[in-house]
Amino acid sequence: MAGYEPFSNTISLAHGDGGELTHQLITGVFLKYFHHDALQPLNDAALIPGPPCRLALTTDSFVVKPLFFPGGNIGTLAVNGTVNDLAVSGARPLYLTVGLILEEGLPLPVLEKVIAALAAAAQEAGVAIVAGDTKVVERGHGDQIFINTTGLGLVADNIHLGCHRVRPGDAIICSGAIGDHGLAVLAARENFGLKGLKSDCAALHTLILPLLENFPGAIKWLRDPTRGGLATTVKELALSAQVDVILSEEAIPVHDSVRGGAEILGLDYLYLANEGKFCAVVESSAAEEILAFLRRHPLGCEAALIGEIKDGSGRALLRTTLGATRELYLLSGQQLPRIC
Amino acid sequence: MAGYEPFSNTISLAHGDGGELTHQLITGVFLKYFHHDALQPLNDAALIPGPPCRLALTTDSFVVKPLFFPGGNIGTLAVNGTVNDLAVSGARPLYLTVGLILEEGLPLPVLEKVIAALAAAAQEAGVAIVAGDTKVVERGHGDQIFINTTGLGLVADNIHLGCHRVRPGDAIICSGAIGDHGLAVLAARENFGLKGLKSDCAALHTLILPLLENFPGAIKWLRDPTRGGLATTVKELALSAQVDVILSEEAIPVHDSVRGGAEILGLDYLYLANEGKFCAVVESSAAEEILAFLRRHPLGCEAALIGEIKDGSGRALLRTTLGATRELYLLSGQQLPRIC
Repeated sequence: MAGYEPFSNTISLAHGDGGELTHQLITGVFLKYFHHDALQPLNDAALIPGPPCRLALTTDSFVVKPLFFPGGNIGTLAVNGTVNDLAVSGARPLYLTVGLILEEGLPLPVLEKVIAALAAAAQEAGVAIVAGDTKVVERGHGDQIFINTTGLGLVADNIHLGCHRVRPGDAIICSGAIGDHGLAVLAARENFGLKGLKSDCAALHTLILPLLENFPGAIKWLRDPTRGGLATTVKELALSAQVDVILSEEAIPVHDSVRGGAEILGLDYLYLANEGKFCAVVESSAAEEILAFLRRHPLGCEAALIGEIKDGSGRALLRTTLGATRELYLLSGQQLPRIC
Repeated sequence: MAGYEPFSNTISLAHGDGGELTHQLITGVFLKYFHHDALQPLNDAALIPGPPCRLALTTDSFVVKPLFFPGGNIGTLAVNGTVNDLAVSGARPLYLTVGLILEEGLPLPVLEKVIAALAAAAQEAGVAIVAGDTKVVERGHGDQIFINTTGLGLVADNIHLGCHRVRPGDAIICSGAIGDHGLAVLAARENFGLKGLKSDCAALHTLILPLLENFPGAIKWLRDPTRGGLATTVKELALSAQVDVILSEEAIPVHDSVRGGAEILGLDYLYLANEGKFCAVVESSAAEEILAFLRRHPLGCEAALIGEIKDGSGRALLRTTLGATRELYLLSGQQLPRIC
């Protein structure tokens, strides 16, 4: 941390003024972790050789609280969240930009820990950080660290995902157990003492891209159920495809720790956020083969067939273990704020 | 504002939870102002047809305070700031993403006013908003609105800007009067009662792209002197090109209102932020023709030749009106926080 030794080791407003301290922050912290030919920290934009195919562009801000939680932190989340938005769009994630809004008084070691985790997650995901920006706001006008990441990826010409391809008779697959992220963050924040909870925060393109390569026509629609959880995601699908989505409660994979913890806290795990799971609408004839493919990958080992598409008008219905039918809606009112 | 009439007209945490209220915000406010085929608000990334040339990618977060100031607001700034970072990289700005971090309790009419201004600025600049994200943080953990914009642009194959092209003998041009933005925001925030101040906030590519087309080889380096002002910008140039930069104080255009206001407040206008100006290093033989070209454009009508490049080792020197020489450094310590 030699780069900022002569100065106090918390963030001051001057770290955001574009002058001497901003330079020290860039050279002392950021350039220690971010290395890419296209990243020129003292230039205003990264220049990227562009290939002749479709680009995917996505943006996400991360305000998770606390910054660190079992299974991840705001840095890993900022990479994986945006990488996953590219992946479920069928894109190979290539480049990320990172925009930081820091609160005056943030300890520099905390910043460095986040940046190191962010850089490691980017390296693991194979994405290059090519542009960045840092602003500092006064104490009491932010909350330690907010991170925006914007991702650029490439979509192969043979990939066409979208709700327009969803048809009655299609199957719905979930890549693994749901609710882990939302409950792990909540438990870390409120200190509930729940055991065994861990965020599923992970980069999904290592699973999604081979899936799309191996089943190019059979995968019709993909989405990662983050804020709003699985229930909101399938309701959005039903509305946008103008079909009914029927889920089977007993088929939905949920870890016991999440099922139990959610019950204790009076939360519905169907609405808890996930950061390492996706839902897919697939040709039903290929569903078993797709499940077998997913289960061979660490990120898909708990994949399950959770429901089907029916002719309808935008309803999401859950067949409960008791044989009843419950309608699912968009998350309404706040369940868990600042979960990502 | 029919989209959110049944609810309170301030931002609640539930507006950020990805559920019903988030949908209302998207459809009731954002989709009123943002329209582009590539923007699919319920998808995770925009798919953009990619052409075979270089891409420029840049990111910037905006935390300006107050949100509204003479000459602009955080919405116009969020567009023009990022557009300008693309423009000074030689890129034609094409696409923007918008990431919002809203504070609980923000009045919806304030949000809508900012979004309307942002959309109008994007339309005026000819850039499409193709992806967005909204997060909400609790009251007292943010400050009304923070905006991240990330910009994607295309760089023509014949454009090669960079400090590696800067040589002793080159001329330095500034596209207009400096200091207006920084002082206008400060005056609006602190209610100093200074008269005649107005931000220069503007999208510069309408001037820069024709300039590059008309003088393809003669323009060597471009930069917009935002945070840190003209002094920090030329010091960065001197350091990165390993030359000395010599500015003439009497040649630097400054409005009387800025010169007077800065003097009253004990500020150095050379360090005040600008949001509608650029500096260029050009072939000295083309300098007069370039100046004449700039002055025919409303955004360049006060353009001036302000200095020259000398053999050296990274110093920025100002020849003062009194005949003395003053060395300029990177802005050190905070002059004006939250100016952009």
